[in-house]
Amino acid sequence: MVKKIEEMNPMIHCITNYVTANDVANCILAIGGRPMMADDPHESDVITSLAKGLVINMGTLNDRKIEAMIKSGKKANELHIPVILDPVGVGASEYRKETLKKLLDNIHFDVIRGNISELKVILDYHNQTSGVDVLPEDEVNDNNLNNYINITKKIAIKMNSIIVMSGAIDIVTSSEKTIIVKNGCEKMASITGTGCMLTGVVATFMANSLNIYNIAYAVSMFGLCGEKAYSKMIKENSGTGSMHMYLIDYLGNMTENELMEGMIIDER
Amino acid sequence: MVKKIEEMNPMIHCITNYVTANDVANCILAIGGRPMMADDPHESDVITSLAKGLVINMGTLNDRKIEAMIKSGKKANELHIPVILDPVGVGASEYRKETLKKLLDNIHFDVIRGNISELKVILDYHNQTSGVDVLPEDEVNDNNLNNYINITKKIAIKMNSIIVMSGAIDIVTSSEKTIIVKNGCEKMASITGTGCMLTGVVATFMANSLNIYNIAYAVSMFGLCGEKAYSKMIKENSGTGSMHMYLIDYLGNMTENELMEGMIIDER
Amino acid sequence: MVKKIEEMNPMIHCITNYVTANDVANCILAIGGRPMMADDPHESDVITSLAKGLVINMGTLNDRKIEAMIKSGKKANELHIPVILDPVGVGASEYRKETLKKLLDNIHFDVIRGNISELKVILDYHNQTSGVDVLPEDEVNDNNLNNYINITKKIAIKMNSIIVMSGAIDIVTSSEKTIIVKNGCEKMASITGTGCMLTGVVATFMANSLNIYNIAYAVSMFGLCGEKAYSKMIKENSGTGSMHMYLIDYLGNMTENELMEGMIIDER
Repeated sequence: MVKKIEEMNPMIHCITNYVTANDVANCILAIGGRPMMADDPHESDVITSLAKGLVINMGTLNDRKIEAMIKSGKKANELHIPVILDPVGVGASEYRKETLKKLLDNIHFDVIRGNISELKVILDYHNQTSGVDVLPEDEVNDNNLNNYINITKKIAIKMNSIIVMSGAIDIVTSSEKTIIVKNGCEKMASITGTGCMLTGVVATFMANSLNIYNIAYAVSMFGLCGEKAYSKMIKENSGTGSMHMYLIDYLGNMTENELMEGMIIDER
Repeated sequence: MVKKIEEMNPMIHCITNYVTANDVANCILAIGGRPMMADDPHESDVITSLAKGLVINMGTLNDRKIEAMIKSGKKANELHIPVILDPVGVGASEYRKETLKKLLDNIHFDVIRGNISELKVILDYHNQTSGVDVLPEDEVNDNNLNNYINITKKIAIKMNSIIVMSGAIDIVTSSEKTIIVKNGCEKMASITGTGCMLTGVVATFMANSLNIYNIAYAVSMFGLCGEKAYSKMIKENSGTGSMHMYLIDYLGNMTENELMEGMIIDER
Repeated sequence: MVKKIEEMNPMIHCITNYVTANDVANCILAIGGRPMMADDPHESDVITSLAKGLVINMGTLNDRKIEAMIKSGKKANELHIPVILDPVGVGASEYRKETLKKLLDNIHFDVIRGNISELKVILDYHNQTSGVDVLPEDEVNDNNLNNYINITKKIAIKMNSIIVMSGAIDIVTSSEKTIIVKNGCEKMASITGTGCMLTGVVATFMANSLNIYNIAYAVSMFGLCGEKAYSKMIKENSGTGSMHMYLIDYLGNMTENELMEGMIIDER
């Protein structure tokens, strides 16, 4: 897949937070995409119209960015450019929840990637009165996996999106199909922005071809690179500062074969 | 101490500059904290209320951030969440000086960390008419150390804060006690944001326990990690790009024993 | 030259994008400068007045920054502080083109650094009706080099600036003289912000001495560091995450002799 991305060299427009923008750009470059960061409503829709994919990441939010997000999202929908939402920390404030509502009211997201508690807020958006679906906020494991799959699928159906729920086990699901991904390692959470970076990687794969297998490969590849970066960190007795760089190294170097060998996915 | 921080896993809300936000987040993660960057007044106080510590860093300042700082600072004071101020480059413009005044008028800071010229501006805030205390802007050394201790203590008393004066020798002082820290090395100044990163580390220690010893350990630990990163850089014949990553590596790996062995502190 | 920069330790004020601000700051520090990032119109001109060089980089643009750019640029011109423009992605939107026009109408730039398509927009600024000069958007090579030199020189004459056109071959030209630089390597484009970083390096050299030779040395040195970083990446079988750090390592360590040996420049 990465070879095809390199040939296509898709421009990915990112409206994203300033904490991890550099890493997101470097991840997109590593796998053959062309990142462009722009977050002002004076130009955001124009930039989107030049892109093959749009990332809307809710970190370090402000009103100016929200306006840009909505303009860009609408333009992307109009031009059939795929859009991914990363609802960073959306449960933390009413401001983020209201922004999420505005985004979901105005934009169709082809892919939504978040962790359990972030996706819970999206579920609530659909269940404002009943509150029937309670998403437990503990970690996914093999015992409770089916419960999580059901809930994730419910979101996928309601949003008509491919949902990526990141966790100890990743769940990638559309209204029709679910793929479980067991790559990745815990230490990745000790590097800021691994979620944002994964969203950038998924966006680049999505720009190449929007289908659930391709998204699952992106998730698996990112996790596998994290595993390899962690192994190198342990072997070299370095730490998370170095692991952070190794992660980008592996993203740029991974071959089709390595991905096929290391991938741990399970189609349901 | 780091073990206790990991157990507590405190959320540290940072209103900080975009130049070094990524590094600050990675430093906080390395020692077991959970960073959250958010700088909009629509949500800043709500985010603060979820945190165990608040960082207010004056880099890349603008009016929107200042409003967020004041809302968050007041909320932190109200909820007894400790707050640290990093008055980055506060002497450079009237805009920063006026902002400092607004912050000091509205917020009690539990800890203030800056270099000599930054802390001088805070001293001036209290001496607007007389200008009695002139803080020489040369480097701290063993000969002039007592002079600097006296001045730092004066600020500590006036502000009712723990003051960390960073320099060739670091001074950590409260109204009652002073601890001198002689860890760290000059090359750290060749990496942008080592001051901001130290503020993030101190904030995480402060969230765990707000007392002068704990703050001094944070300062010593950060300096010691800088020394180790510098030694590795020399040994590997690399440079400041790599040293930057090693610094975060060492922050994440340092054991209680290593810290106890490497710490050079002197209680006055 | 770097020794002289270290002695001078010039403060470089950067109004730049948040994606690469950290790298730009670290590059300036590596070669002996002192970066200061500030982008608010309440203080930008005051900060500029303290600087020895000003960077105006058009990435992640917004109205607030544009106002700061114009205030700072005017102040720099007034005080004869050299200014460099990096018209990042200026062709991507009308908003950027209009901003470029505002900047060029109000500020004299001593140096302008961009790639071919960015500089094309500057040429259009002077040829709004005729559109005579068509700058082909393919890569510079030995066969079409003279054509590019002529066009670059035309911009240099019209703007009364030193122009740096980055590409497979770099062209540095004033109204009177042209220097071709053949350092650098393709892989540098896989690291986000190498253009922004080069602009920061050129700014620091420019602050030391504004002449075409000095600018060409900066361009050559940055390219040479990229080559060395790439070689190390290949040798160590790492990737672009690590190469990114090596690049800064080499910038900080390069000696006068190494630069003289590795430099591939050709005066026309």
